[in-house]
Amino acid sequence: MSDASSSQVWSPSGWKDGQAFDPMSIAEADAGEASSISAARRFILPGVPNAHSHAFQRAMAGMAERLGDPDDSFWTWRERMYAFAALIEPDDLYAIASQLYLEMLEAGYTQVCEFQYLHHAPDGSRYDDPAAMSRALLQAAADVGIGITLLPVLYQTGGFDARPLSARQRRFGCATDEYLGMLQGLREHLAANQRLGLCLHSLRAVPESAMREVLFGRETGMPVHIHIAEQIAEVEECQAVRGQRPVAWLLDHAEVDADWSLVHATHLDELEVIRLARSGATVALCPTTEANLGDGLFPLSAYQSAGGTWSIGSDSHISVSPVEELRWLEYGQRLTQRRRNLASRPDRPSTGEALFAAAWSGGRRSCGLSDDFDSAGGDWLVLDHDAPPLVGAKADDVLDRWIFSGNRPLVREVWTQAQPRVISGRHIHREAVEARFALHMNRLLQRM
Amino acid sequence: MSDASSSQVWSPSGWKDGQAFDPMSIAEADAGEASSISAARRFILPGVPNAHSHAFQRAMAGMAERLGDPDDSFWTWRERMYAFAALIEPDDLYAIASQLYLEMLEAGYTQVCEFQYLHHAPDGSRYDDPAAMSRALLQAAADVGIGITLLPVLYQTGGFDARPLSARQRRFGCATDEYLGMLQGLREHLAANQRLGLCLHSLRAVPESAMREVLFGRETGMPVHIHIAEQIAEVEECQAVRGQRPVAWLLDHAEVDADWSLVHATHLDELEVIRLARSGATVALCPTTEANLGDGLFPLSAYQSAGGTWSIGSDSHISVSPVEELRWLEYGQRLTQRRRNLASRPDRPSTGEALFAAAWSGGRRSCGLSDDFDSAGGDWLVLDHDAPPLVGAKADDVLDRWIFSGNRPLVREVWTQAQPRVISGRHIHREAVEARFALHMNRLLQRM
Repeated sequence: MSDASSSQVWSPSGWKDGQAFDPMSIAEADAGEASSISAARRFILPGVPNAHSHAFQRAMAGMAERLGDPDDSFWTWRERMYAFAALIEPDDLYAIASQLYLEMLEAGYTQVCEFQYLHHAPDGSRYDDPAAMSRALLQAAADVGIGITLLPVLYQTGGFDARPLSARQRRFGCATDEYLGMLQGLREHLAANQRLGLCLHSLRAVPESAMREVLFGRETGMPVHIHIAEQIAEVEECQAVRGQRPVAWLLDHAEVDADWSLVHATHLDELEVIRLARSGATVALCPTTEANLGDGLFPLSAYQSAGGTWSIGSDSHISVSPVEELRWLEYGQRLTQRRRNLASRPDRPSTGEALFAAAWSGGRRSCGLSDDFDSAGGDWLVLDHDAPPLVGAKADDVLDRWIFSGNRPLVREVWTQAQPRVISGRHIHREAVEARFALHMNRLLQRM
Repeated sequence: MSDASSSQVWSPSGWKDGQAFDPMSIAEADAGEASSISAARRFILPGVPNAHSHAFQRAMAGMAERLGDPDDSFWTWRERMYAFAALIEPDDLYAIASQLYLEMLEAGYTQVCEFQYLHHAPDGSRYDDPAAMSRALLQAAADVGIGITLLPVLYQTGGFDARPLSARQRRFGCATDEYLGMLQGLREHLAANQRLGLCLHSLRAVPESAMREVLFGRETGMPVHIHIAEQIAEVEECQAVRGQRPVAWLLDHAEVDADWSLVHATHLDELEVIRLARSGATVALCPTTEANLGDGLFPLSAYQSAGGTWSIGSDSHISVSPVEELRWLEYGQRLTQRRRNLASRPDRPSTGEALFAAAWSGGRRSCGLSDDFDSAGGDWLVLDHDAPPLVGAKADDVLDRWIFSGNRPLVREVWTQAQPRVISGRHIHREAVEARFALHMNRLLQRM
């Protein structure tokens, strides 16, 4: 690489000279690939982990923005989502997830936590392979080259009152033994760069006894994910039935530690903010979905002041971009506090870099991966330093510019497992993956 | 056009068959151009007007996101903006505006209202041609093919207390006669698809007497723009000095009518919302800039309920995308009201279409252009209906999908004055414009 001397690699402790640390060395041995890749790599970043995904929802992106009810809300959206979910079979899911994971890679995500509750056939009957849907996701991730933490979901009740699942929720449900068996069975299907985690859908969907059974004897380092405190109605129902707000209840009834990711945690009181920050858990924030669903704004400034860890996720995939998630996470705080540059601190003054650093290390934890940078290698992005928003950028402002200027995608190359997945902004299999996605989408739309 | 029968053209009263209405007929006579343009045009939309722009600020996009002061705010941002503005000469402005207007066209904007206060040399001395900076903007707009409403700005005082301009504001200032003379002189330099409007920077920058003098005898149909009620401090200062909130004061002291655009109007009380809606004026909303600067959220739902007209603008250009403006305008309402689909109504249930229709007709008014669709012709977009977010889209959901799904640009072609400006998502002069922009940006950065 003739100009490697000019390249710089971001790390949590600062930018490093690219010569001392060349993530591309393996691929350069392969002359065939290297010749088609741009020579100059000015700004190299580790890939962004996507801490929360429901892959099938990518297929309905933009299709629930039509007034259905004068009081459209999260709950009416959920009914539409259930109707859509009921159409999706394993081969559809493979096609949809392949498209989604390709879009993630092109946007700069190199790892995804897949919160997977679509287990059974639409009528609730078991597929011949009871993990067929989960395996479709693992296969899609392997084929497009994104790392995955598969989180098969435990989903048992339709509310805090332990009511049974509705007809449309039936494909989500597993008895506890069945769930643990599925998890065990999936271990043998994990490819390189794939992991498993435990996952409770939410407090309203998992009785306390089942929660305890699933968490009993869990391995240290295995991630545990749960949806929590996304909607006010959920907070109120939890208070009515369990006498506490959801996050406070969870902290009192489970050993919440650094292996945990609490997804959303939008509605917190001041004490919950502090207790959650001190628990060592990561909050998986999904700013674009939380805005689209009208959830509310997470109290980021207070949580950061208390030392809390967070990650980002694209969740329902109405947006698939770490730029939009991080930009609007910061903007949400600016709008409510009427100040600027809120995620940055005197010792890390670039707001873009402060956001990126937090999302990287929190995201690694959500995935069950080490956030020790020196042992983390493998996933890399190269920014398109020739693009107009980055003209003249230097290490100290390139992350501000990436996150806070313009709308054209600025990721030029993406590498995972030391293989190039995105070259010149396009995934190397874009055409084939898009064609399969279009075929399955058109079939799904005919069935609606 | 072999498949014109399948194309549909959006209008405020619904989608129309493209055969009956073919905006491309002129260009098709030019076989040379037509051969390089995609044949299939499924979804044709009128171009989006951009109601508020300070072109020079495009050059600092992403460069003010660094913590400078522990209380960073709009006001510390303004100091950085002034320092940047002080570097820009007419040839820089031409290069920056060309790049910006190209990005606008690629994103789907076909008209821009340019709120231009950078009149004089950095030390306040007059250029040989006192309108040199304004003419650089007209030239840039003509060369890349965007329509422009040039709004030379009257800027006279540094605050409501009528303090003189600071050293850095000196290049903005004009005596009233000088201002009217500049406006008159610019008339002869207008090319096709270019217009002039009157512009008051803000109540704090324009004494009441100067406001009256400039507005006296104004022509019906000539736009009048003003920044107003963007920041709480501005509202409080106006109340302290003039005894009223800014919008209430303006409505009581000027004949605000349908020719007016009030930019931002973020901070309104309930009565101001109703009075402003009834005045017939347009509020030019700039959601991405208002978020970036920590201004606050405009009360859109109340204003729409009162029958108010609005447009969108990209203002400081940290984003240049009608999709991001409209998406987050709606999301801001969802986040505060914790409901969904707030801009739509039972008779226009698609939220994307409701937002687009409002922004189109309000934007046309901000530009001083007719919002009578049948006489409006000339500016057209073609969406990339093959892109994954639009697979299987139909007229009734394509605007929801465009505005509420994904992050890849979905505008395939853009036409203004019946000429193709963007083909396959790229402006026809992208390379040359980007190269000139890079040259001037690198020079500016060296001078900083």
